[in-house]
Amino acid sequence: VSLLNHKFELAARPIGLPKRADWVYKEEPLRDPGDGEFLVKIIYISLDPAMRGWMSNSKSYVPPVGIGEVMRALGLGRVVASKNPGFAPGDYVYGLLGVQEFAISDGKGLTTVDPAIASLPVYLGALGMPGMTAYFGLLDVGQPKPGETVVVSCAAGAVGTIVGQIAKIKGCRAVGIAGGAEKCRYVVEDLGFDAAIDYKTDDVRKALQQHCPRGVDVYFDNVGGEILDIVLAQLARGARVAICGAISQYNTVMGIKGPSNYLSLLVNRASMKGFLVIDYAGRYGEAAREMSEWMAAGKLKTREDIVEGFDKFPETLLKLFKGENTGKLILKLADA
Amino acid sequence: VSLLNHKFELAARPIGLPKRADWVYKEEPLRDPGDGEFLVKIIYISLDPAMRGWMSNSKSYVPPVGIGEVMRALGLGRVVASKNPGFAPGDYVYGLLGVQEFAISDGKGLTTVDPAIASLPVYLGALGMPGMTAYFGLLDVGQPKPGETVVVSCAAGAVGTIVGQIAKIKGCRAVGIAGGAEKCRYVVEDLGFDAAIDYKTDDVRKALQQHCPRGVDVYFDNVGGEILDIVLAQLARGARVAICGAISQYNTVMGIKGPSNYLSLLVNRASMKGFLVIDYAGRYGEAAREMSEWMAAGKLKTREDIVEGFDKFPETLLKLFKGENTGKLILKLADA
Repeated sequence: VSLLNHKFELAARPIGLPKRADWVYKEEPLRDPGDGEFLVKIIYISLDPAMRGWMSNSKSYVPPVGIGEVMRALGLGRVVASKNPGFAPGDYVYGLLGVQEFAISDGKGLTTVDPAIASLPVYLGALGMPGMTAYFGLLDVGQPKPGETVVVSCAAGAVGTIVGQIAKIKGCRAVGIAGGAEKCRYVVEDLGFDAAIDYKTDDVRKALQQHCPRGVDVYFDNVGGEILDIVLAQLARGARVAICGAISQYNTVMGIKGPSNYLSLLVNRASMKGFLVIDYAGRYGEAAREMSEWMAAGKLKTREDIVEGFDKFPETLLKLFKGENTGKLILKLADA
Repeated sequence: VSLLNHKFELAARPIGLPKRADWVYKEEPLRDPGDGEFLVKIIYISLDPAMRGWMSNSKSYVPPVGIGEVMRALGLGRVVASKNPGFAPGDYVYGLLGVQEFAISDGKGLTTVDPAIASLPVYLGALGMPGMTAYFGLLDVGQPKPGETVVVSCAAGAVGTIVGQIAKIKGCRAVGIAGGAEKCRYVVEDLGFDAAIDYKTDDVRKALQQHCPRGVDVYFDNVGGEILDIVLAQLARGARVAICGAISQYNTVMGIKGPSNYLSLLVNRASMKGFLVIDYAGRYGEAAREMSEWMAAGKLKTREDIVEGFDKFPETLLKLFKGENTGKLILKLADA
């Protein structure tokens, strides 16, 4: 093989928003796959808020990306050469392939996906990590009951769109919080949320009181910060807050803002629970089967926000933190 | 009856620490109990951190004490006259009797206590609201398992002393956080905690790492503020944080400090749950029976900090917020 690989390696730990200079773009000749290995041509790279955390040096659930290492990312690609009997050329695989054009893998942590069941980008969204996060975070941590009110922040994002739709499937009232009129229109009109609150123009506190007259039973939090505080003040008795992320805080240089209304948990006998989707890896299959059925039945709609061009990686990642994406943000490198 | 009653009525909503002028001390002739009512001579008044919340006008789990109303407090007294067949003169009763020398009651919310089973002050502590709070907060919310590490703040207080001892009874490692060498000595040497951290002189973070080498599995929080943040950073995977109170925040005029390390809940798949002891009212009997057995077996020790003199009520209440009490703080009005 005389292929050249291109990749983004972490060059510096970002302060605030990541910038292009926090990575170095490299061209390298590809080595041949060894015994038990195979070569993947990456088609799609998944851009996820968690990537910001992986760039930081603070203690977390996984070690950070090392300086000089390929930037960590989920992705989907096609096997183009293989010395591993479990993976044949032509197979499509999903997993941590990194921000690069080609990956050599021994198959560990990768799963094969079937393009006959869903289109490839869906495997990065609803049937990938964001979908699993929504499914288990809402159903396992949030424990919604029919008739309850579920509120989700980043409602028009990869996770939020799924959370609200599953809430509806389960007989709940779904209220989304999103930035901008178009995102709010999208989740209500296209996805069937009961209401949406535009945090850029609405008085979130008043809008929550209006749309959640009996309080918030389940809050699926992707943002943290001020919105978490406002929702905490509107909890119903026995409410469950699922802490999925805190995108408003990932790029802060001022220190994380803690929820000053946390004593609402006491007054309302409510709980706040953090979770990580990787703990549910053993049940991904079950979730994927159920979500595929919902998609086939037209109850669960997906949307991908696909940007083309490998060299646009740094700027495209920032769309997440600027709230510029609707649905699953994906970088496309090549045709399938 | 030509008895005179003396009482403290709420006169103003305090800003910061309550002061004497936030109440008005009144003398009033006592009316006779009507049909179904009885007259209680109050012997002990229970002084509890929750009283600070009852003085504030913010939305909570009970309405605040109204201006001009007798200050709300738990207490224990002796029935001295009765037109209620359920309560006879000589009976001892416990419940919300108020900050006054006499109370007239129809019995609602009061329970009769037996001085043959435990001394009267114990009914305000281990067998009263603080003991029930410790029992259900630790066992039901904290769900400690043998071998786990339980940390409790305000460890030398009415609730904390019981929490640590029940943790030991259940086979856990018990670590207390308290203010001052004598309180720390008390919980370790007299109550059998495994370790105590003096937040006034120790580096709490380092001391926690030292005394909880495998992290904190259960944190029973009575203080909030900075200590909550430090403990959150030391949670073990799957930890449970029981939010009982936040005494460091009750008198703030700066706004509540939220726990900026709350994302530790996510990294550690941990939960934070608020609770109110009143939700367990139907199970108080079961808890009291078990705790009485532990006391009889010498496994559960109690201590009361009894201050004499009704007129000392305002200053004595402040001992709670200044951390000056060890064990259950009680105001004694009369001999039993």
